Amino acid sequence: MTFSSKLIEKAVEAFATLPGIGRKTALRLVLHLLKQEKAVTEQFSTALLNMRDGIRECQTCHNLADAEICHICADTRRDRTLVCVVESIRDLMAIEDTGQYRGLYHLLGGIISPIEGIGPSDLNIESLLARIQEGEIREVIMAISPTIEGETTVYYLAKKLQDLDVTLSAIARGVSFGGDLEYADELTLGRSIVARIPYNR
Amino acid sequence: MTFSSKLIEKAVEAFATLPGIGRKTALRLVLHLLKQEKAVTEQFSTALLNMRDGIRECQTCHNLADAEICHICADTRRDRTLVCVVESIRDLMAIEDTGQYRGLYHLLGGIISPIEGIGPSDLNIESLLARIQEGEIREVIMAISPTIEGETTVYYLAKKLQDLDVTLSAIARGVSFGGDLEYADELTLGRSIVARIPYNR
Repeated sequence: MTFSSKLIEKAVEAFATLPGIGRKTALRLVLHLLKQEKAVTEQFSTALLNMRDGIRECQTCHNLADAEICHICADTRRDRTLVCVVESIRDLMAIEDTGQYRGLYHLLGGIISPIEGIGPSDLNIESLLARIQEGEIREVIMAISPTIEGETTVYYLAKKLQDLDVTLSAIARGVSFGGDLEYADELTLGRSIVARIPYNR
Repeated sequence: MTFSSKLIEKAVEAFATLPGIGRKTALRLVLHLLKQEKAVTEQFSTALLNMRDGIRECQTCHNLADAEICHICADTRRDRTLVCVVESIRDLMAIEDTGQYRGLYHLLGGIISPIEGIGPSDLNIESLLARIQEGEIREVIMAISPTIEGETTVYYLAKKLQDLDVTLSAIARGVSFGGDLEYADELTLGRSIVARIPYNR
């Protein structure tokens, strides 16, 4: 790609460092910004800089927040006896979007993955134990993706928490609602028969 | 999508104003920037601001440039008797990337499109006529996309230029090199038979 302007080239390269954005898409975005008023680019840059400067990690649950304590931990109407352990803010947001959960969270900041060199000490596990030892928490819900790394992480956490006075639970796994059994993968379908649940009449 | 941070929300919304980027992709980009050093976001913003502040339109060909005259118009090794008329900088870059053209360009800044309300007066046609009247240009190559709007624009330009002392040409149209005839669209294949060219032995 030959650029007629060093300034455009640098802007395209900046966009192209972002995940999933190649140089052609980057050029499209840059030309879009050039078509708009100068103020649009200024607002765009300011939003990013403010975000990067101002963002903090919640001291309780490691969620990304605008203050020392995130709005979920600060919300007194939430059930403080429940903690849902998630991998990342994306999983937290997915659960929040369901509107079905009113407890607190704890973000691990990743899952155990020997291939990527992530061990238990890289995750926010000690702070979870400390939170539980404070005594208010009654149940820890493990909402970790049911992958091999996820299951390993859940197993490790369960071991760590077994001597503490909390109930452990994990999100239900099985066939999707609205999904055809025919198209469910073998592993999920097989396990959902083995781990069948009583039918509530 | 529920955000735990107003700062993140604003950054996501900023990204989501860009074409082809939805809120999920925007969130992924924002979380990517948050994972990087603060300097990465600063460099990113600076590249965009510098680009938006510093970019100019070449006074000769309307190309985007860092100076009053773009690097193509300023390049004395280029053939100044040839001008290739294109719709936009993207088409200019596509032609430059072929490495097959050593003349100058003229960017129309769009094509005639009654549906989008773009008429001849919205395009850089007067400045093209002025350039031709200076007398140095011998041939005007029309490299406009062969769509209905493109053909209309070419037709309009040809009318405008008919009394001027320049040769008019248009980029060759026909089946793609390396393409199967079987898969060529009917219109292209039909026209390429009607407008067949002598075979050079």
